[in-house]
Amino acid sequence: MSTTTADPTTRSAADGPDLAPLIDALPDGAVITEVDSMAGYRMDWAKDPNAGTPLVVVRATCTEDVATAITFAAEHGISVVPRGAGTGLSGGASALEGCMVLSTERMRDIRVDPVTRTCVVQPGLLNAEVKKACAEHDLWYPPDPSSYEICSIGGNIATNAGGLCCVKYGVTRDYVLGLTVVLADGKVITVGGPRLKDSAGLSLTQLFVGSEGTLGVVTEIVLRLVPLQRPPATLIATFKTLDEATATVLGITRTMRPSMLEFMDKASINAVEDVTKMGLDRDTEAMLIIQSDEPVDYAAAEIEKITGICEENGASEVFSTTDKEEGEQFVVARRMAIPAVEEKGTLLLEDVGVPLPALGDLVRGIADISTERDVMIAVIAHAGDGNTHPLIVFDPTDADAEARARKAYGEVMDLAIALGGTITGEHGVGRLKKEWLNAYLGDDVLALNHIIKNALDPAGLLNPGAGY
Amino acid sequence: MSTTTADPTTRSAADGPDLAPLIDALPDGAVITEVDSMAGYRMDWAKDPNAGTPLVVVRATCTEDVATAITFAAEHGISVVPRGAGTGLSGGASALEGCMVLSTERMRDIRVDPVTRTCVVQPGLLNAEVKKACAEHDLWYPPDPSSYEICSIGGNIATNAGGLCCVKYGVTRDYVLGLTVVLADGKVITVGGPRLKDSAGLSLTQLFVGSEGTLGVVTEIVLRLVPLQRPPATLIATFKTLDEATATVLGITRTMRPSMLEFMDKASINAVEDVTKMGLDRDTEAMLIIQSDEPVDYAAAEIEKITGICEENGASEVFSTTDKEEGEQFVVARRMAIPAVEEKGTLLLEDVGVPLPALGDLVRGIADISTERDVMIAVIAHAGDGNTHPLIVFDPTDADAEARARKAYGEVMDLAIALGGTITGEHGVGRLKKEWLNAYLGDDVLALNHIIKNALDPAGLLNPGAGY
Repeated sequence: MSTTTADPTTRSAADGPDLAPLIDALPDGAVITEVDSMAGYRMDWAKDPNAGTPLVVVRATCTEDVATAITFAAEHGISVVPRGAGTGLSGGASALEGCMVLSTERMRDIRVDPVTRTCVVQPGLLNAEVKKACAEHDLWYPPDPSSYEICSIGGNIATNAGGLCCVKYGVTRDYVLGLTVVLADGKVITVGGPRLKDSAGLSLTQLFVGSEGTLGVVTEIVLRLVPLQRPPATLIATFKTLDEATATVLGITRTMRPSMLEFMDKASINAVEDVTKMGLDRDTEAMLIIQSDEPVDYAAAEIEKITGICEENGASEVFSTTDKEEGEQFVVARRMAIPAVEEKGTLLLEDVGVPLPALGDLVRGIADISTERDVMIAVIAHAGDGNTHPLIVFDPTDADAEARARKAYGEVMDLAIALGGTITGEHGVGRLKKEWLNAYLGDDVLALNHIIKNALDPAGLLNPGAGY
Repeated sequence: MSTTTADPTTRSAADGPDLAPLIDALPDGAVITEVDSMAGYRMDWAKDPNAGTPLVVVRATCTEDVATAITFAAEHGISVVPRGAGTGLSGGASALEGCMVLSTERMRDIRVDPVTRTCVVQPGLLNAEVKKACAEHDLWYPPDPSSYEICSIGGNIATNAGGLCCVKYGVTRDYVLGLTVVLADGKVITVGGPRLKDSAGLSLTQLFVGSEGTLGVVTEIVLRLVPLQRPPATLIATFKTLDEATATVLGITRTMRPSMLEFMDKASINAVEDVTKMGLDRDTEAMLIIQSDEPVDYAAAEIEKITGICEENGASEVFSTTDKEEGEQFVVARRMAIPAVEEKGTLLLEDVGVPLPALGDLVRGIADISTERDVMIAVIAHAGDGNTHPLIVFDPTDADAEARARKAYGEVMDLAIALGGTITGEHGVGRLKKEWLNAYLGDDVLALNHIIKNALDPAGLLNPGAGY
């Protein structure tokens, strides 16, 4: 029995194993144990109320640091919660009580190879920084989550993140050629690499993408890059009814591949107008923001064709421009939606997706849930992918409102499942959506997830409870 | 002890379990046991000399038939070799002695949904038939293996097949949204579906793609489709040296995304000229066949830019056309290469890929192997992907020549590995390349393949020995 008096600001030896060997094995400043200093590592943007306090935070600087940390955790039976920039929206980086938070924020190297049109990047670099480093070589890394300026590429890999251009250019997994991964026992493996095609062995690279840190911790990523995107032409259209807007979406996607096809409902339009006073029509039921990045004359022709589809379907107003800067002004309304709605209260940010023809039913059903539960739900969507972000708003000082909001959060997922949809299109399951995963996947597929998890991490120490 | 006299044309009960319950449970004609009738199911195009004779061939008509067959096989410990159209080039569908060959050739349904731009297809439909059914709705399924007129979509999923347009449009996995799979115990699961984005649970859909029938048998596939390709402009360029050609390839891929970028060496050019008498220059060292499918003016501009790159790099001749039919004539030379080289003898068809800058070293090294082993090796390549098909030719009546060819086959893989490349870009490992998989993946990654295989198929009955 230890007789040490507990110091409330640090964890004593009585709380867990002796951390000295870990501290010795890692660079200066890599290990944090003060409770106050660890506070910023407890939650991600999902603000999971059940987040615990870690035993230790490790701020790794390289693959070897990650291997050292995981080996130590494995030896002492400590759960490991990997963490990128902490911008996750499903609680995949919520700390567990007594866990090791393994932060990759200091792993920020990137090497761009313009000859092979690839880059090798560490997980802590932000998505926007990856884009910028590639752009210096006239290359483009397409996936663009709305949070691209603050989310890490490692987190993007963990959740198979999407974004606005994915309707034409695909999601994160479509750009991942290879990974260096530290497995649950501390072993370092490299899967895939800068080869554009590879059919040798199982698709382990793809298995790790989207696995939310439950199968291993990614420490290096080989990304495929493409030539820079052409400046897009932009169209904005408003509709008096939801049906007009969803019919327009289907009319477009059936024959065309716009490089952006975004949707905003009345509540999100009004929230943005409250903040920006940019002159949006507060009475409009739905707005579409659409871009084409075809070569300039063809983009103009595509936008003209889309204008026709909007008008056929009864659009109130259609405005378009081939000027990149002017177009970007329209996109700002969409990008402002989340912060603008957040002005109204605390957000539960949903991420349900459905097959495209069910988009209208989903949005209508969400409105019904909003009415029934008496909570504000603003809906924005990557409409061309059928992927919606219902933003559920509640007053954090009103316990009943919060309870109704959490009820609505679950009901939106139930609705998506009933419509043949998914509980998460691009944010991951994390800890907040885990309760609905079985209903979505079914018993057999969930069991298969567990079989693979158990095979790779028999002790269940890697991000337990997240994403599976 | 059975006292039945063995009938050499059928398998007797002494050879294995009583097949009557299987025959009863399946539609008429689904079960074949006569040795002569099974002969066509022993090998794929790799003509694996070690192929065995199956105990039974099952020609399933639906998912339930596959489940019935696999359940029976599991109960009796019989290995199952799944088989599509039998056009595989790595021996992934070579029968094992006493196995069940599970053919999907009769599973040929397709339903195209133009609204969601997806189709649901059974595995036995040929790639060309998938393309045709989609084209009737003005939609395109891009992946185009050279064998697209004779290979099945199920086989394409099993090997993650590539093709000529993949340099711009990606490989099979990029179009697979969902799968119905019969697992090793006969259980039927559905993973993914017609949802364009999905981050819920592990990426099982992607894990099954490219797994060569070792983790389950795919019985239904949801494919993502895109609008029809624009008619391409085509360029053909000849070079006096290999270096000029590979420098041209790098010059193009660095800044552009052609929709085809194919390479032929002197030996393959001459083999095609022998057959076609189309007037190809027999003295040229390398030929590139390039297409652009940008909108017409832009395709012309792209082809003009590529012409400039060819000329800067010393091309002997460059010819281009925006006429689709005339362009197709050039592509014929490339498509004819395999049958033309096959006129020279029996082929061992290689499939090694390297990072693009190593393409020249690979082709040169293959020429050295050809000289040293005194075997003809003609090289064609999906040059824009760094994926080459060295065609090793031998006289099947000359045992020494065959031995030298098989030696060269392995040395080409050794060379690819040494250059940072893969032993298979798009054909799969099958049984013929298994010997080199460890050298390519390394012990740890191979072990991880085995861990996952064992977790999903503990008895090891699904396509044992293929692809892992």
